[in-house]
Amino acid sequence: MGAPKAVILLSGGLDSATALAIAKSQGFELHAISFDYGQRHRFELAAAQQVANAAQVASHVVFRVDTAIFQGSALTNDIPVPHNRGEAEMSTGIPVTYVPARNTIFLSVALGLAESLGASDLFLGVNAVDYSGYPDCRPEFVQAFEQMANLATKVGVEGGRIRIHAPLIHLTKGQIIQQGLLLGVNYGLTHSCYDPAADGASCGECDSCQLRLKGFAEANSKDPIRYINR
Amino acid sequence: MGAPKAVILLSGGLDSATALAIAKSQGFELHAISFDYGQRHRFELAAAQQVANAAQVASHVVFRVDTAIFQGSALTNDIPVPHNRGEAEMSTGIPVTYVPARNTIFLSVALGLAESLGASDLFLGVNAVDYSGYPDCRPEFVQAFEQMANLATKVGVEGGRIRIHAPLIHLTKGQIIQQGLLLGVNYGLTHSCYDPAADGASCGECDSCQLRLKGFAEANSKDPIRYINR
Repeated sequence: MGAPKAVILLSGGLDSATALAIAKSQGFELHAISFDYGQRHRFELAAAQQVANAAQVASHVVFRVDTAIFQGSALTNDIPVPHNRGEAEMSTGIPVTYVPARNTIFLSVALGLAESLGASDLFLGVNAVDYSGYPDCRPEFVQAFEQMANLATKVGVEGGRIRIHAPLIHLTKGQIIQQGLLLGVNYGLTHSCYDPAADGASCGECDSCQLRLKGFAEANSKDPIRYINR
Repeated sequence: MGAPKAVILLSGGLDSATALAIAKSQGFELHAISFDYGQRHRFELAAAQQVANAAQVASHVVFRVDTAIFQGSALTNDIPVPHNRGEAEMSTGIPVTYVPARNTIFLSVALGLAESLGASDLFLGVNAVDYSGYPDCRPEFVQAFEQMANLATKVGVEGGRIRIHAPLIHLTKGQIIQQGLLLGVNYGLTHSCYDPAADGASCGECDSCQLRLKGFAEANSKDPIRYINR
């Protein structure tokens, strides 16, 4: 018997790179999945590839999601990405960068991949502390998805157990970065910005950049990526 | 205010055509979604289009699912579709025609479409009586998905309620057909066979054909579609 397999949702951001490192540290054979959903911050996908390579994953697939049917999100449409929102504002309501049912769709596809690989463990880098107000990043969502997944799948019905691991869910951004640095994550390969420059430099002002910079400050570490406005 | 919108998963089969007719009879504005997942029985998609047109839906989208990542199902690969399994055999275990996490993925995408349309109601033609042993056709799956959906989405969090309607779930195939005939469904437009001839004629022997034929017999009605072996 080889190592048990795990499927890791890998966006190319800081959180999922850390979740991948945690899955690796727990001895899983790593199968990464990334999603091409027409996101404007496409540097993410290149970053996901680099992070996957650095972690020496057993496989990495990019799943193309046809987003023509999704309307109304700033991440996939021409709505301006908000800049320089304060922490109080970020913690109020659901931002325009919300993509309808995104994590539900991504986890569902990852679940299909897991079944086809014979994997029972899925890793997801969601975080409910320093998060952006997305409903599908909360612990109650992850629990409900796991419960559903065990009723939906062959493995769940035949006495196995699907586990949705969200190892970062109760950590602050600073704690996530500290844990990742201990596990040797190269955050220089990751990409978080919702609104990067043409050369990939991060804006430093969108919600994602602000949370990232706050995290590195909390972790007493310097963010190795390039920013436009600094 | 116009009619409330509903998203209907429309495969082109008998069950989803009936679910569409039920949604219509309840006064919803109909938005159909079909999935192109590389199924071998591609006549389904043409049937879905015809059924959608006949019901005069407000919109119909075909969502392409990249199934390169799915392995091990007879519906998307070269595993032979079983023929002439008896009813006892069909009710034992999960058949090779199971596609990993299929309904989970389809419902998740439909949920994203519903959110982007401002719809709270989804209709799914699953059936737990004369079904083929798929775990994701059972009432407990549908309930768990609904619970998860209300935690996953903006509408759920902001005080609305996502409802997953599975109006056929406790009906026999015969009862489904009787209800559909009362609502004026033209079953001649639908397609059920997993293993059709090149001209679209149904095999009459796969699980899906056998359940369909049994249903028409129970409903004392003649199936209007063409079969190879009859």
